Amino acid sequence: MNEYRQIVRKWVKPEDLNQHGALFGGRLLQWVDEEAAIVAVAQLGTIDVVTRHMSAIDFSARADRGDLLELVYSIVAYGRTSITLACRVENAVTGAEILTLERIVFVAVDATGAPVVHGRTAPTPGTERLRESSK
Amino acid sequence: MNEYRQIVRKWVKPEDLNQHGALFGGRLLQWVDEEAAIVAVAQLGTIDVVTRHMSAIDFSARADRGDLLELVYSIVAYGRTSITLACRVENAVTGAEILTLERIVFVAVDATGAPVVHGRTAPTPGTERLRESSK
Amino acid sequence: MNEYRQIVRKWVKPEDLNQHGALFGGRLLQWVDEEAAIVAVAQLGTIDVVTRHMSAIDFSARADRGDLLELVYSIVAYGRTSITLACRVENAVTGAEILTLERIVFVAVDATGAPVVHGRTAPTPGTERLRESSK
Amino acid sequence: MNEYRQIVRKWVKPEDLNQHGALFGGRLLQWVDEEAAIVAVAQLGTIDVVTRHMSAIDFSARADRGDLLELVYSIVAYGRTSITLACRVENAVTGAEILTLERIVFVAVDATGAPVVHGRTAPTPGTERLRESSK
Amino acid sequence: MNEYRQIVRKWVKPEDLNQHGALFGGRLLQWVDEEAAIVAVAQLGTIDVVTRHMSAIDFSARADRGDLLELVYSIVAYGRTSITLACRVENAVTGAEILTLERIVFVAVDATGAPVVHGRTAPTPGTERLRESSK
Amino acid sequence: MNEYRQIVRKWVKPEDLNQHGALFGGRLLQWVDEEAAIVAVAQLGTIDVVTRHMSAIDFSARADRGDLLELVYSIVAYGRTSITLACRVENAVTGAEILTLERIVFVAVDATGAPVVHGRTAPTPGTERLRESSK
Repeated sequence: MNEYRQIVRKWVKPEDLNQHGALFGGRLLQWVDEEAAIVAVAQLGTIDVVTRHMSAIDFSARADRGDLLELVYSIVAYGRTSITLACRVENAVTGAEILTLERIVFVAVDATGAPVVHGRTAPTPGTERLRESSK
Repeated sequence: MNEYRQIVRKWVKPEDLNQHGALFGGRLLQWVDEEAAIVAVAQLGTIDVVTRHMSAIDFSARADRGDLLELVYSIVAYGRTSITLACRVENAVTGAEILTLERIVFVAVDATGAPVVHGRTAPTPGTERLRESSK
Repeated sequence: MNEYRQIVRKWVKPEDLNQHGALFGGRLLQWVDEEAAIVAVAQLGTIDVVTRHMSAIDFSARADRGDLLELVYSIVAYGRTSITLACRVENAVTGAEILTLERIVFVAVDATGAPVVHGRTAPTPGTERLRESSK
Repeated sequence: MNEYRQIVRKWVKPEDLNQHGALFGGRLLQWVDEEAAIVAVAQLGTIDVVTRHMSAIDFSARADRGDLLELVYSIVAYGRTSITLACRVENAVTGAEILTLERIVFVAVDATGAPVVHGRTAPTPGTERLRESSK
Repeated sequence: MNEYRQIVRKWVKPEDLNQHGALFGGRLLQWVDEEAAIVAVAQLGTIDVVTRHMSAIDFSARADRGDLLELVYSIVAYGRTSITLACRVENAVTGAEILTLERIVFVAVDATGAPVVHGRTAPTPGTERLRESSK
Repeated sequence: MNEYRQIVRKWVKPEDLNQHGALFGGRLLQWVDEEAAIVAVAQLGTIDVVTRHMSAIDFSARADRGDLLELVYSIVAYGRTSITLACRVENAVTGAEILTLERIVFVAVDATGAPVVHGRTAPTPGTERLRESSK
């Protein structure tokens, strides 16, 4: 699944900064999770997904106000009811790595929150699975 | 420049809704402008750009909470100090058009806000122009 | 309808600034739209209105942190199901024009989003039409 | 000073609601204070004002999502370095009183935060005092 | 009830600042109210509480970006359907007092907003009353 | 260091919810990180700390709008330039575990972001270390 890449870009704005002018680690994780959910939703063809697991995270370098970040997503594996993504965050201008997340796992769920089989086994670049599922 | 396409996806969340549960027109324009600025910045190779003009906008259909939107950007023209983008916003699930913006113009500026010549004439899919400019 | 003027004042705060310390064009449009909706609602006597159209916009001058802006609304026309407003935004301290929006059109809608006839033909300075409609 | 009235309108939006769907008392006070500061700034002709005092507040009625509120400001007194405003908040549709604040006091300050004499003794409807002070 | 103390800490972040770099008085009141509601909820054993009254407030000193504040709550009295708290806000680093609020009154309500008898007469340090009430 | 416990309570509000009404995993991580930073700051006696590492996270149960959460922090270890905390998040009403984070590591840094020796080896319940360091 090496060929799949989804890149999301984010500005670091004043409201994202901690008390000494650097991006909050937690704010960055919020972005990583929210944008990963959009990737998972497009891949699984359902908007009903929840975050189940994140692997350990090392914050390699800080980001500052006005930095433009790239969140680069790839797909690690398709499970029966889940999908596992990886994410590398880097400074779009310097190329410096901000963090690497090896695994973030989403599970497709029904209205009660119980896992459901999604039947997907390979990546798609678009959102056509969502369109099919809405018919 | 037809080949260039940049797609940005956005959830409609509770904080984006107006008093009768639909996405605020103004919130959508905020997204369109902010994400267009990121496109312009990557194309022009400078983070110092400002919005100069937006063409007239028709809101074709409403968007509701939980909708996933696609903002599809293309490049209309490169000027000497400016770049002109177009944006079509659609519902990622139904494909319905939410709005079309024919022209949004950004100008590269210096620290005093005066226009500067950017020297770009063709699209790039990546952010390497930002990396070069930071050396 | 020249006599009607509604003035709304806004501070430019840190969360409204882009990467080089100026007010985001999109944030300003969000304010222009949200406050225009409040004008439309008071004039039409219903809270169920949606933005349908905005005319082209030129951003004349930038706004910075700490600036106090005035959004000055006037009424252009009453349609059968719509109302057309104009808006001029200026710096309250220097008087400099930030942008001028010639037409922003709101439509009164029912619960399904279909246009409804509002029956209004002239401006009112207050909100008594909302109070009548709630009886 | 009975003739001076400044009316500000606010929508109650989803992000303003507490855990059982009513407007947070604290959010309403935030609006009352921020908009009062804009009134004080226009009256005193300086943007350097700070809140010094608020009189006791009774929350008479709750506000709900989608409500349109009116914050009605009047001027109680001009001090040497201060101005005292009053504010009544009501539901723009039903006319129900949400709260009444008898006195909110702002003080004009210099860059070190020390009070300065402002020299104003009577209300003005506009912002021309800010414009004069910026010359 | 002198022994009960609940301390909540808050950073002053860029989005909390007014036009001259100090914490908005209204933002601080929003925090004081929201955190007080959490105290009231734990004490009364119900999440259905509303702010009814706040006593007069003097803002003793300003807070700036990056300051760490402590909101120190104590319990003044238990009424039949209400609880009265006090709050002192200070700078966690310098110990300087920012404001003192002598009384903030919450009332337990039912689904229609009518006061209900809560039956509590003494403080608890934990949230076990909420757990009991959910059984 | 078993005796140290810091409990922070948070409401799940509309702006914290994803597209199907549950708390965003990323928003919860943001809270966990921001409140952990406040704990680290009080323990190390300096506001200059950055997040360096988070161990893997399993999201055990979902949280919904209106839930009151408890973030329970304990101290795992003091390093030479770092401090390691643990955090358990649970529903304050039902007691259900939302997530457990075994290790979140903060590092004390100087103005250039380089680690500095903090000299702390044991917990304190208060913020007196910050007050000493400001003298």
